[in-house]
This record gives sequence, structure tokens and C-alpha cells, in this order.
Amino acid sequence: MPDPTDWFTEYDDGGSAFSLRLRAKLHEEQTPFQTIAIYATTDYGNLMVIDGCTMVSDRDNFIYHEMLAHPALFTHGAPRRVAIIGGGDCGTLREVLKHPVLDAAIQIEIDERVTRLAEQYFPSLTVANGDPRAELRFEDGLAWVRDAPAGGLDLIIVDSTDPVGPAEGLFSAPFYADCRRALGPGGLLVQQTESPLHHEQLLRATRAAMREGGFADLKTLLFPLPIYPSGWWSATLACADARIQGFRESDVIERAFPTRYYNAEVHRAAFALPEFLRPLLADRA
Amino acid sequence: MPDPTDWFTEYDDGGSAFSLRLRAKLHEEQTPFQTIAIYATTDYGNLMVIDGCTMVSDRDNFIYHEMLAHPALFTHGAPRRVAIIGGGDCGTLREVLKHPVLDAAIQIEIDERVTRLAEQYFPSLTVANGDPRAELRFEDGLAWVRDAPAGGLDLIIVDSTDPVGPAEGLFSAPFYADCRRALGPGGLLVQQTESPLHHEQLLRATRAAMREGGFADLKTLLFPLPIYPSGWWSATLACADARIQGFRESDVIERAFPTRYYNAEVHRAAFALPEFLRPLLADRA
Repeated sequence: MPDPTDWFTEYDDGGSAFSLRLRAKLHEEQTPFQTIAIYATTDYGNLMVIDGCTMVSDRDNFIYHEMLAHPALFTHGAPRRVAIIGGGDCGTLREVLKHPVLDAAIQIEIDERVTRLAEQYFPSLTVANGDPRAELRFEDGLAWVRDAPAGGLDLIIVDSTDPVGPAEGLFSAPFYADCRRALGPGGLLVQQTESPLHHEQLLRATRAAMREGGFADLKTLLFPLPIYPSGWWSATLACADARIQGFRESDVIERAFPTRYYNAEVHRAAFALPEFLRPLLADRA
Repeated sequence: MPDPTDWFTEYDDGGSAFSLRLRAKLHEEQTPFQTIAIYATTDYGNLMVIDGCTMVSDRDNFIYHEMLAHPALFTHGAPRRVAIIGGGDCGTLREVLKHPVLDAAIQIEIDERVTRLAEQYFPSLTVANGDPRAELRFEDGLAWVRDAPAGGLDLIIVDSTDPVGPAEGLFSAPFYADCRRALGPGGLLVQQTESPLHHEQLLRATRAAMREGGFADLKTLLFPLPIYPSGWWSATLACADARIQGFRESDVIERAFPTRYYNAEVHRAAFALPEFLRPLLADRA
């Protein structure tokens, strides 16, 4: 049996744990907001850990970042202005900026150190940070959305840590009401909403809070994510004022940028709800 | 940090590990074929481990067993005779027997102890063993298929352990040629083919061996499986003599039996290949 000290292990709240074998610890620091550690693993490339929870690895982050960006962007008819709340590793920003139709992508990350460490240890995630359409802000996303002009955004992506600590307020009805106000006609919100197997109650509660915040329609999308608890993850897509129906499929097929996980078939597949999650739809009044 | 002795950990061959928190070890034995251990976990119910690898847990086995049984059975136009190679925990057999259209389901498990321990520790998996259409044989699946009458089966499900030890021959072209011969017109083979992220080469090699064994068309299906390496798993569906096109969708929708994962949307979604797996299709000559 390997020496456990050679592994990073996340013990989750569901009685399971996930470990990656390490080559080295590269960095650790306490920021004003959280503890960030960076490891080099043997098989998953570099790994960022925040407060003991795996955040991003070189090997599997493509699935997460693509699925937070592209389904929502190809669902919106003509997205021009996107805000990313959290997302400090800049992987979601990179995917968003692949869409030439955008005018602006604003990332609002509370902890600048996440981005600085991503620049150093995950350079492939930050390649688009110099894009003239990108704006990186380091401040509280809750306050930023509250103060945002009404109707000025087409899409808000909430790419947060788990709903404890700095991210807790990002799973609340008042925040969603602020998002709703900041979105223009047909505006969308998409948020990572944890494991469909381990955190089904959080998924339900988040959907209820989004409805309370004024969103008209919700869809849950699912994708694998090896380094997160249960290896299976969800995001919730919410439309401010209309039904979520279809997506710009021909634009997906004709897209001029590369993806590694996302494509038109995957888009449709991600919205297929397993039988045990069907009761989620009961909140569709 | 929890005491590691309170956890069962599987260290996989891809530099990652998965652990479940234990309440107790319930059983361990060395059979003529392998070592089988049974644990009670805190959050995943009972867990069967064979030669150090997680096999089945109460909590997530529904996904695996449903996905090995139903996509293939609803793809076949009129399945009557099904063989399960391996599958000793009887969970796949249970799902197969939910189809009233079947005349016979024969399970050929090399290690009778797997089934006896399933009866004792996973009684929900063995509830259908008394079905008059079920036949449980404890012998070598390779030899059984070799000796099976030509054209007598509609579906062969290979529900095996990893491709090492007793299961190694179940991933080989000669075995697939024997399966091909044992299948009638429109006959199907479906086999668990490991993680699409960790074992992409095995997935490719298995597809190549199935073609070499004479199968006309192949499709890969994907599903989450928390207790298996990477949390993401695949099965490969092969048709003996025709293209795999569509499935009996109205029969899925009108099915009179319960499922927890599988439904018509999930069926379609499982066959959506992520972009990085698209080169798999290049073997479609």
C-alpha cells in the first residue's frame, strides 16, 4: 500500500474521499479569504486545493470549464456581455472568450491570489487573460452584481467554491434577485451546483432560491468530474424571463474553436435527467 | 484528518485513489479465484471488494446495472435469450429480468462465492434469482460461450471484473468470435469497458478486438460510477451483423418496471461522445 503522505486526499462530507498521488507540494499560502495549496501530481498534472477541497487539475478541468461556459453561451441567442463570479483560475474565462460574438467578459474574483497562482501554476488556463475583451476585477462578486447597471448583462456564470465560506451568499435568493436585475432580455445565469448524488438537497435548494430570485425557467446539466466528490457534477442554467428551449446548434457545429469535451451531442446529453432526479422538475410550476 | 484505518481505499493504476468510510468489515475470504471482502460503509451501504478493487456498493450500483442491461435490451428488436458472463452479484440479472419479453436469462459466473456473498450481503440484488426464467451457472464463461449452440442467443452481457486475472480472456478477439457465433440475427454484445478517461487505450483495444471477432458495428456508452476509478465509466455495445440504429423508445417510455437512472433521454445521452473520444469512431471503417 502506498505511503499516504505521498497523496493529497480530500475527505468529503459524504463518507467518501478522493486522492491524487503527488510528486511535490509546490506552494501553500493563507490569503485573507482561504488557504490555497498547489501540488504537482503524478498523473493529473498540477492541482489547486482551496481549504482542503480540490479545485482544479490540469487533467480534467477541461470538462468543468467547457460545461460552465458553452452550454449557456450557445443557449443564449446573441450573448455580448458576460460576467463570471468567482472563476479565479481563469479557465472559464478562457472558454468564454473563445466566442467571437462577445464584446466583454468580466471576471469578478474575490481573492486575487487565486488568479496570480493560476498564472504561475496553470498557465494554460490564463492564456486568454490578455484578450482586450477581458476585464479582471478582484472584489466581492455579491456587491458587484448588486451595483451592476440593470439589464446590462447577457450571461452571469457563477463559478464558485462550495457553498460555505466566501461562496455561501452566492447560493441565496437575494443574490439571484440581483442577478435577475442585472440581466437583459433572454438573460441567463449558470452556476455550478455540486454533485447530483451527494448534494441533491443543495441542488433542490439552489433551484428554489433561483425561482425565488425571479428566474422564469431552470434546467440542470450533468457532467463527469473525477476530482470532485462522487466524480459527477452538476450546473444549473436559469433563464430570467423565458423558457429555455433549444440552443444554437448550427453555431456549435460550425464553431471555429477547439473543445475537448463539449459538442452538440454532449450539449443535448448533459440535460438528460436520470430517473431519480426527475422530481427536480416538479419545481417547474 | 480521519484515521485511514477507518476507510477502505482503492489505489487505482492512474495515480488516483477512492475511499469509503467504514463502519465495519463484515467478511473476507480467499476463493479459488480471488479474494473477496465485504464492508459496511457509513454512506454507501455495503461494499464488495474483489482483489482490492471496489465492485459494487448499495448506493451507486443502480447506475451500473441499469446501464449494462437496459440500453442493450431496448436496442434489440425482440430479445428472448440473454446470457450474462460474470455478473455474479446478480444485479445485472435483476435488471435483465425486468423485461417481460425475455424467455431466458442465463448467468455464467466463474466464482460461485460472489453470488453466495451477494445473497447474504446484497439481498436487494438477488431478489430475481428465483425467477423461473433465470438460470445460474457457476463455470468458466469463456468455455461456456465456446460450447454454446450457434445463433441461440440474442444478447450477451459481459459484466466482468477488470481485464486482469480471471477476466483477462473476456477482452480478447477469440472470445468475441465465439460470442459472435453464439448470437442470432441482430444479436448484441455489451461489455463494461472501464474508464473513458483512465483507460482510453483499453477502450480502443477492446473495440479493435470486437471488430476482429466479427462484430459489424460498435457504440460506446458512458455513465457516472462514483466507486470506480475516475468516477466515470463506459460500456461498449456491439451488433453482430448490422448497424446499431435507434432503440425501442416507445417501449422504454411505456415500460412497466421502475428504474432509478435509465430512461429514454438517458439512453440517448449515454451514446453522446465527448470531443476527445471522437477519434474512437475512426475505427468505424
